[in-house]
Amino acid sequence: MSSQSAVDHAPTQDELDLLHYESRIDRPVRIKVPELHRDERLRHVIFGGQFSVDMLEDLGATADKIRALSRMRNGQDFLLHLLHHKRAMLYFTQPSTRTFLSFMAACQILGMTCNEVRDPTTSSETKGETRFDSIRMFSSYFDLIIMRSKLPSLAEACAYLMNDLADSGNRSVPIVNAGSGADEHPTQALLDIYTLQRSFQFTDPKDSPISNRYNNLRQNFPNLMKGLAGKVYGFCGDIGRGRTVRSLASLLANYQDVTLIFIAPNDPTLSLHDDLRRRLVNRGVRMVEVESLEEVVEGMPVIEQIDALYMTRIQKEHNGPSDEAHFAELDLSPCKLTRELVARMKSYAPILHPFPRDQRFGEIPTEIDDDPRAMYFRQARNGMWIRAALLASIFGVDHQISRFFHEETKNV
Amino acid sequence: MSSQSAVDHAPTQDELDLLHYESRIDRPVRIKVPELHRDERLRHVIFGGQFSVDMLEDLGATADKIRALSRMRNGQDFLLHLLHHKRAMLYFTQPSTRTFLSFMAACQILGMTCNEVRDPTTSSETKGETRFDSIRMFSSYFDLIIMRSKLPSLAEACAYLMNDLADSGNRSVPIVNAGSGADEHPTQALLDIYTLQRSFQFTDPKDSPISNRYNNLRQNFPNLMKGLAGKVYGFCGDIGRGRTVRSLASLLANYQDVTLIFIAPNDPTLSLHDDLRRRLVNRGVRMVEVESLEEVVEGMPVIEQIDALYMTRIQKEHNGPSDEAHFAELDLSPCKLTRELVARMKSYAPILHPFPRDQRFGEIPTEIDDDPRAMYFRQARNGMWIRAALLASIFGVDHQISRFFHEETKNV
Amino acid sequence: MSSQSAVDHAPTQDELDLLHYESRIDRPVRIKVPELHRDERLRHVIFGGQFSVDMLEDLGATADKIRALSRMRNGQDFLLHLLHHKRAMLYFTQPSTRTFLSFMAACQILGMTCNEVRDPTTSSETKGETRFDSIRMFSSYFDLIIMRSKLPSLAEACAYLMNDLADSGNRSVPIVNAGSGADEHPTQALLDIYTLQRSFQFTDPKDSPISNRYNNLRQNFPNLMKGLAGKVYGFCGDIGRGRTVRSLASLLANYQDVTLIFIAPNDPTLSLHDDLRRRLVNRGVRMVEVESLEEVVEGMPVIEQIDALYMTRIQKEHNGPSDEAHFAELDLSPCKLTRELVARMKSYAPILHPFPRDQRFGEIPTEIDDDPRAMYFRQARNGMWIRAALLASIFGVDHQISRFFHEETKNV
Repeated sequence: MSSQSAVDHAPTQDELDLLHYESRIDRPVRIKVPELHRDERLRHVIFGGQFSVDMLEDLGATADKIRALSRMRNGQDFLLHLLHHKRAMLYFTQPSTRTFLSFMAACQILGMTCNEVRDPTTSSETKGETRFDSIRMFSSYFDLIIMRSKLPSLAEACAYLMNDLADSGNRSVPIVNAGSGADEHPTQALLDIYTLQRSFQFTDPKDSPISNRYNNLRQNFPNLMKGLAGKVYGFCGDIGRGRTVRSLASLLANYQDVTLIFIAPNDPTLSLHDDLRRRLVNRGVRMVEVESLEEVVEGMPVIEQIDALYMTRIQKEHNGPSDEAHFAELDLSPCKLTRELVARMKSYAPILHPFPRDQRFGEIPTEIDDDPRAMYFRQARNGMWIRAALLASIFGVDHQISRFFHEETKNV
Repeated sequence: MSSQSAVDHAPTQDELDLLHYESRIDRPVRIKVPELHRDERLRHVIFGGQFSVDMLEDLGATADKIRALSRMRNGQDFLLHLLHHKRAMLYFTQPSTRTFLSFMAACQILGMTCNEVRDPTTSSETKGETRFDSIRMFSSYFDLIIMRSKLPSLAEACAYLMNDLADSGNRSVPIVNAGSGADEHPTQALLDIYTLQRSFQFTDPKDSPISNRYNNLRQNFPNLMKGLAGKVYGFCGDIGRGRTVRSLASLLANYQDVTLIFIAPNDPTLSLHDDLRRRLVNRGVRMVEVESLEEVVEGMPVIEQIDALYMTRIQKEHNGPSDEAHFAELDLSPCKLTRELVARMKSYAPILHPFPRDQRFGEIPTEIDDDPRAMYFRQARNGMWIRAALLASIFGVDHQISRFFHEETKNV
Repeated sequence: MSSQSAVDHAPTQDELDLLHYESRIDRPVRIKVPELHRDERLRHVIFGGQFSVDMLEDLGATADKIRALSRMRNGQDFLLHLLHHKRAMLYFTQPSTRTFLSFMAACQILGMTCNEVRDPTTSSETKGETRFDSIRMFSSYFDLIIMRSKLPSLAEACAYLMNDLADSGNRSVPIVNAGSGADEHPTQALLDIYTLQRSFQFTDPKDSPISNRYNNLRQNFPNLMKGLAGKVYGFCGDIGRGRTVRSLASLLANYQDVTLIFIAPNDPTLSLHDDLRRRLVNRGVRMVEVESLEEVVEGMPVIEQIDALYMTRIQKEHNGPSDEAHFAELDLSPCKLTRELVARMKSYAPILHPFPRDQRFGEIPTEIDDDPRAMYFRQARNGMWIRAALLASIFGVDHQISRFFHEETKNV
């Protein structure tokens, strides 16, 4: 809401509603987090800053169990019955096929029924209904609202609306942010973390071609430890505008002793922005900025020292009028992956990409797809499992899943 | 179908089909009703005139049981299994997010699978298919057709088509009218009635902040009786064009000894139209028309004597070219609710609104939302329950619900 | 992909991917079929040429059992549990309400959850994603991809992609072609075959008004045999452009001793095209081409000697610029059915139509709908059953269905 609009007309109820929540939205994250949780459990999922390392590890463990149960027929039956009395609303006024389908599948794994509103013009807002009346209407019919919106803080404001409703004895449902504005997409960061968790277990035969892999790897990499702590992460491509880069980097900063290397063209739009740099520095994260995957840092080329590589495409759809011409003059090839570069990577280092990749830009050529380090397709499927784990946690059935899983595997 | 078109070209099959049903549609309601029922059970739901007081009370009782069972896990399992072998088609060529989602949720509560066609241009009608071929195609795949259309009598004609198919030994499925043309929206009227039924039970703690509420209320209102009969109902706002006002008023006229007060601006478009006035007079309903919520009728301001208030927004989307300018000259404030007016209402009198409300017009300011008399959000949720009750009745599982409910509550 | 485009620019990854599969697509059907099957079971459904007479008879028998079980409550429960752990993606970038809904219903009968992508512009392809990345993304979330596309060989290429993924140890799911380009729509041909199978059982009371019908018919038609072999099939209307005509004719050619009579206007666009004529001749099929349903062939009018009649509409949406004017000069009435013509048909001969029929052209007037030979509405419902049988076969639960069916009917 610009101050301009406040001058032009008396504020609408919609604007007053947003104003009403503005002061709450402006509070520091550590103050806000408790309002998004309840009794040690997730109540709403709004921003990445909600997730401590313990929560990330718990969610990953739940996702692993859901995944394992989904391979057994009685495990499937158990999961499908868990939340089959719950109805989800996917309110996606900003389109995203991938995130939408991933959430649908996650709901369905736990038996939830899905409903959707994707076109904002079909809603009653054209008849003068406020956004918050619409959301409250959804909360009348459904047990969960998963929302994706262009409005930066709408999901957060909706979470506070639901809290207020609960406080006044009214019906209230959980809100899950499936991407809002340019900043927050917390479940994307969760799936990236989960993919790294699985990669750095060094055990799962599906995610690695070698059995007993960890012991073998330790012969070549004697300092190798399991888990996300103590590792070197490379982020490559459109660092400046990559919402997923910002979210993942922030979550990785929770882990002990990580190094983040940002590989981006020397360009104010594409390279690391000040706000994220400052935030990471304040949290004491070791951080390096380079312009090429082959650049030498502390005596070793980046490509050879990273434990994981997070590739991104150039987000041309966000180009300003002068960007196009300017980017054409840049040499972007040092930010593209090739088969030769992959050959120089550590043998266990996973390659991630939030997808879609851009066939015209070519940041990851398809010839790399068969490399065992290429995780980007599994990463998509991981998104489904971690979102299912998130839903299980919100509805408090994660412990039930653990118990059932242990009963089942005890018999094996 | 205008007579003009009949002159211009040979009639299409579509037009012939509609003509074929026209004489049946033109019969009086009391003749038509038996064709929409079968063995004392609902076969199709087409217009409000189908529902006697007994049926309204039965549906409300079923809705109450479904609602109660939905709060118990084994009640949910029972309900989800009831109609999980049935597939519904929601054929909404006239959009309505709210009604659509409410029907979806109602189907899902009983385990039905939902399918939808919302964009008429995706259908085969562009290849020359008649409407009735399309409907019959739907009836091949699905077990129920819930339809919303701009064509006033399409749902009714489809009901006759289905009856004809059954008579000739062909597959036939129930038709539910989810709004047709400017006139009929029977399930909206049902949810309004159900909200009044719940309000005038004076018992449910969810719908009232005071326990033992009825006895307390009787001290202040000695003549207060349970139920819808004998009460004073206020309808306020766009009376002339409010489809929901017309439907609800007609259903309330079935109850003994009711008084209907219509509060509308003195304007031929917005105030009570002749046809509804005549219909209500013919049925012997006591009726008053005023221009303000504060107008005094028989010695008492309207706002103080009504037992229930039905608010509506001005339906600007139906404005003619001259309406806009004309309405701007009217003082519409006597048809808006304020906190001060609510304070003068009877302490038990529910405030209803078919929603969406109009934030620009402001017929109900949000500051009233927290008042215990504000029923409009619960009303939306009531719509889901009463529609589920309707589906249960159509498929003849309402008695099963009663039996299961009594078994369950006997043990409590 | 035109060679023109190859000149204009460096090929995109999308084009390279299609090229990569082109040589495999160009192989003869008999070489390709084994790659679409696995262990005697359907792996992908891509073209009609996959189906031998044995497979067609097996699928029909499975469809009959699914249909019968759907009439019993415990049969429904059994079916709904069969694949309720499977999630289908209906990827319909070429719209078709009818086929879409039929597949939805088929999935739902077996308990599968359905998801859809219908608008290609909502997909990530606008961000530079290749078609095959999109498909592989779908395969991450779902267990089956049912696809309909304007691109002639896309479904086939996707099947090879899935095979390659499986061969390299990656996740792979079945592909079902729900219509691709102008050529293949294999499940439409299956439903046509299934409708003929049911008609030529001469037993089912739902499909025939007379009980003990076969014995009665044999008195009038002493040579009448059960089944599809040895019969005379008439195809009438837009033979040249009718994708369903081509597919069904090709499948019928698998049966012994059939005669195919093509009834079409004498026009190069509408009458039998060379490629199909040549293909049928090569397979030794007896074939006749005439211009009217009443034309005399070997001493008897066509309408009186056919055992089944397959009607089609003129596909005006495929008219070229000169077709419109040219067709207006043709007398198309000899390719329309009338009540008088139906009266001359054999008393058991089913009338099929792939639907939608064209009310403006009038190839089948509605007055014929009540004739017991009119199968076109049942044909639509048959499509649902045969598609369910196909899904059961793909997921290997067809034998389970048989066993359950025999257990259930043994007790009857």
